[in-house]
Amino acid sequence: MTITITAFERSPDGGKGLARDTRVRWALEEVGQPYQVRLVSFRAMKEPAHLALHPFGQIPTYEEGDLALFETGAIVFHIAERRAGLLPDDANARARAITWMFAALNTVEPPILELGTARLLEGDKPWHAERLPLVEDRVRARLGQLSVRLGDADWLDGAFSAGDLMMVSVLLRLKSSGILDEYPNLAAYVARGEARPAYKRAFDAQLAVYTGKPSTG
Amino acid sequence: MTITITAFERSPDGGKGLARDTRVRWALEEVGQPYQVRLVSFRAMKEPAHLALHPFGQIPTYEEGDLALFETGAIVFHIAERRAGLLPDDANARARAITWMFAALNTVEPPILELGTARLLEGDKPWHAERLPLVEDRVRARLGQLSVRLGDADWLDGAFSAGDLMMVSVLLRLKSSGILDEYPNLAAYVARGEARPAYKRAFDAQLAVYTGKPSTG
Repeated sequence: MTITITAFERSPDGGKGLARDTRVRWALEEVGQPYQVRLVSFRAMKEPAHLALHPFGQIPTYEEGDLALFETGAIVFHIAERRAGLLPDDANARARAITWMFAALNTVEPPILELGTARLLEGDKPWHAERLPLVEDRVRARLGQLSVRLGDADWLDGAFSAGDLMMVSVLLRLKSSGILDEYPNLAAYVARGEARPAYKRAFDAQLAVYTGKPSTG
Repeated sequence: MTITITAFERSPDGGKGLARDTRVRWALEEVGQPYQVRLVSFRAMKEPAHLALHPFGQIPTYEEGDLALFETGAIVFHIAERRAGLLPDDANARARAITWMFAALNTVEPPILELGTARLLEGDKPWHAERLPLVEDRVRARLGQLSVRLGDADWLDGAFSAGDLMMVSVLLRLKSSGILDEYPNLAAYVARGEARPAYKRAFDAQLAVYTGKPSTG
């Protein structure tokens, strides 16, 4: 059955791979599942047809037959649950991999989102310079704990899983800030994620949208 | 097999039910699963024994035989997956319920967490009064979209599910702010959640910790 996801017609990051369709593309590439992409303009994202698919007017969405999903975490989990390659077979190991998915999205990403908001939406405010270090320290608090847990392991819990896919994707948002480099094992962890052939294919596919080879119009 | 969760020895909210163990207690009550509680002090939460269970030094955790989980979303999902009552049987409806869990935690909760941070950690900063309305408006942007999607339905997608449990729990954090009351259908939705017998039992159990009847020492 054909799988169709949505992505930005013009991503705010210009193809750096930080838009959330990259996470879904990566998951689909890890399990070897072909997919189609429908590009959506900022205007179309706020119109009824797209809001019926995604109540918060964002990308990505996921359509497969009569199933329509939104929310990246849920889409990646759906892909991981249906096809081999992103969740271990052992029940306890599987539950722990799912735990890392939720930890990435609800414990590590919120302060990183707040840092992005501070820069993007409050960069021109009179408090920005004084407030930014506070926000960065909240990110560091989480990274420090994550760094301790990862130690010198390659991945968070045994083999690469959907939990690592999500955590690497969340940490990638920090790349331009320099904060990630303060934690060498986390920087190496992210680099391991980026080096996976499936990630490279996903990255190249989202970049192709901006270099003149969109998958679909 | 005995299930043991952790909760604050002294919750920052003094028993208002906003600590995240309430979400896990609620899920366990919905599926009729008895559980034990181990109370943890702020000091113990940052010590090696607890950090081995929860790398970010928080509560709740979940122990069942040789399985140890952290992260509320993952724990609630684990409970929902193993026992009937929180996820529909139909595969597509199940995927949509899981979508709402992730949407609650990664789309709706982050701006609400930011509002809490603004009040709790930056309430004494010179920028607080001018910045607070900006943060509140980011919360309103999400609530407006959620309110439109919910419409006059009782729950987000058919029958009550783990998605509603998580969304109601996230929205409960706004109760003291007054913002929720700007969206009457969301306020009624939260009230429907609070009226569920399983929620009441969970709320009473977490409150008992502060009124002299802790489940365990």
